[in-house]
Amino acid sequence: MSIRNAETTWTGTLREGKGNMTVGSGAFDVPFSFGTRFADEPGTNPEELVGAAHAGCFSMFLAAQLTAAGFPPTRIHTTADVHFGRDDIGPVIEKIVLNTEAEVLDIDQDKFDELVAVSKEKCPISRALAAIKEFEVNASLVG
Amino acid sequence: MSIRNAETTWTGTLREGKGNMTVGSGAFDVPFSFGTRFADEPGTNPEELVGAAHAGCFSMFLAAQLTAAGFPPTRIHTTADVHFGRDDIGPVIEKIVLNTEAEVLDIDQDKFDELVAVSKEKCPISRALAAIKEFEVNASLVG
Repeated sequence: MSIRNAETTWTGTLREGKGNMTVGSGAFDVPFSFGTRFADEPGTNPEELVGAAHAGCFSMFLAAQLTAAGFPPTRIHTTADVHFGRDDIGPVIEKIVLNTEAEVLDIDQDKFDELVAVSKEKCPISRALAAIKEFEVNASLVG
Repeated sequence: MSIRNAETTWTGTLREGKGNMTVGSGAFDVPFSFGTRFADEPGTNPEELVGAAHAGCFSMFLAAQLTAAGFPPTRIHTTADVHFGRDDIGPVIEKIVLNTEAEVLDIDQDKFDELVAVSKEKCPISRALAAIKEFEVNASLVG
């Protein structure tokens, strides 16, 4: 078991304040604010970090499944769309869509689809995000 | 409603391959691998991105609650510990612990604790991660 770390400092009110999000590895330290999260100001927000984590985890998990099945992938490219809206409780992630394109030699479509379905269900970030109402994976196989 | 984006390209097998995680805002583009995720090699992993998203969201949500209650915060500092282990299904996030320290003038402890509890339950990343078995928030108020 490992423990991964991250950190935020927020100063000030919701609308006039600002914060940062940084990770224990030191890979990034990025600012965010009301404007970068709820409006269209350029900058990051927690939702796109969740999308990056999900795209990364799913891609790696699918690579693991393909490798284990005897079809080591050449390349897996995945985009994540995180739909951020509002319901009766407050702001909410309503839906995540992963679009993945995999270059894999010699695998048939049925086997590929099976391994995509396993990855969709079992990758650790999918499991962590299982409370989100809608989750789609659109996967295409390229030779 | 907004749609936030992220992207990963993974090349190669699970153990010898490598990938990156990048976000639509362009705030970062970071490499990861089997070694940075499951071993102790320096570098990032999806779990610390989830921790950063959760620490950021919780801090901002608590700032919003405090502001709305008439106690605009001076500073909120939150660390996230993401416990990454393994169960019968595979790798899993077992637990997240947020440790938060808030500098807020004139608020009493009961009101503070109430707003921390609301933020723990209702911040959008907490809601998204509700499937994780254990979630603790340790909050302290500094004058």
